[in-house]
Amino acid sequence: MPNLFLIPTSLGESDFNRILPSQNTETVSVLRYFIVEDVRTARRFLKKANPAIDIDSLTFFILNQHTSPEELSDFLKPMFNGNDMGVISEAGCPAIADPGADVVAIAQKNNFIVVPLVGPSSILLSLMASGFNGQNFAFVGYLPIQPDERSKAIKKLESRVYSENQTQIFIETPYRNMKMLEEILKVCQPSTRLCIAADITLDTEYIKTKTMKEWKTQLPDLNKRPSIFLIYK
Amino acid sequence: MPNLFLIPTSLGESDFNRILPSQNTETVSVLRYFIVEDVRTARRFLKKANPAIDIDSLTFFILNQHTSPEELSDFLKPMFNGNDMGVISEAGCPAIADPGADVVAIAQKNNFIVVPLVGPSSILLSLMASGFNGQNFAFVGYLPIQPDERSKAIKKLESRVYSENQTQIFIETPYRNMKMLEEILKVCQPSTRLCIAADITLDTEYIKTKTMKEWKTQLPDLNKRPSIFLIYK
Repeated sequence: MPNLFLIPTSLGESDFNRILPSQNTETVSVLRYFIVEDVRTARRFLKKANPAIDIDSLTFFILNQHTSPEELSDFLKPMFNGNDMGVISEAGCPAIADPGADVVAIAQKNNFIVVPLVGPSSILLSLMASGFNGQNFAFVGYLPIQPDERSKAIKKLESRVYSENQTQIFIETPYRNMKMLEEILKVCQPSTRLCIAADITLDTEYIKTKTMKEWKTQLPDLNKRPSIFLIYK
Repeated sequence: MPNLFLIPTSLGESDFNRILPSQNTETVSVLRYFIVEDVRTARRFLKKANPAIDIDSLTFFILNQHTSPEELSDFLKPMFNGNDMGVISEAGCPAIADPGADVVAIAQKNNFIVVPLVGPSSILLSLMASGFNGQNFAFVGYLPIQPDERSKAIKKLESRVYSENQTQIFIETPYRNMKMLEEILKVCQPSTRLCIAADITLDTEYIKTKTMKEWKTQLPDLNKRPSIFLIYK
């Protein structure tokens, strides 16, 4: 039975030795068929993983929000012919906070072997470093953009921290980070803790936990830096 | 400012090249002070990471459920003296589904730099390979043991799958896996999907997604195999 390898990439410019097991490179080097979000970044990743790779001999299928379910099934044709394939995410781990999950679901349905490779996840790394509850946590992705709905969503997450003892994790588009941060500080109780993690695995990595009250005295500059927010009591 | 490195370990007997970035080994090799759950397994891990390591020159502090908050603070004394330290989990990533989070919280409170290293997490790897929603998911740890409470807990998780479009992830003590599996199949709707992941990153790795109805016709043997359960619509 052919394998579908889920191949994590870096979260920005960082040395692969820092973030990927060496065996990932070997796995990647023998695959001929890839499902990717963006061909250019996927090529760059493969070239960096294995400078000797013959990029022109590889076949890429492009998976994004516009890909239809029918196209998705077609992507797996090489597997029906007995070939292994790889899914490469734009950043971090495929199928976590990105469109890869649909293609994995089809592979599972067809009884292919799905093999997740180890790599960096901003969700997991920030949770580890937050000091928050790692025995009960939720990642909820993006919050609503509309101000009223957003502040309601933050309140709901904070109440779940207290009612279920569950760490709540969410993200924002980098250029809106500062607005998000202000909103969190406005909505949450002063004693609730917020962990802000930015540029994870990069040289400028920043992961700090403080109470809302403490954060209010000094805000980090998160503008355009990939960031993730965690709240806990 | 000294660093507290969070050092993932393997999820069983597996080649480090498969699951850990090579730089983890370098980081580990220069540390002298460690907070660990079990000294014996920590020593074995360090020796495997770096066969040339001088184990007797290292200091270990033991962190488990019996460690008091006062002891915990004491553990970080080497950092107050300017030394970097490492936290090593029993399996997988420190502070995720294990007691490491408390020591991280103290490090954060004292403004130490907390550096999470990349490594295998059964939660994240199983979620990647499940084909389930990776943009909204919750890990809730262990469910109650008492049968009534447990079946209520499973029902609540399933209803959250539908009401919030959120993948629900939980674990069980390996010798109770088969009982848990039977209970899940009894309680959930036939069309709800269950992903069972066992022996993640090991040669016997098994990750399969089916509907409850499909699972009922054939159960995998999970007895004493470290497993994780995921449900989604």
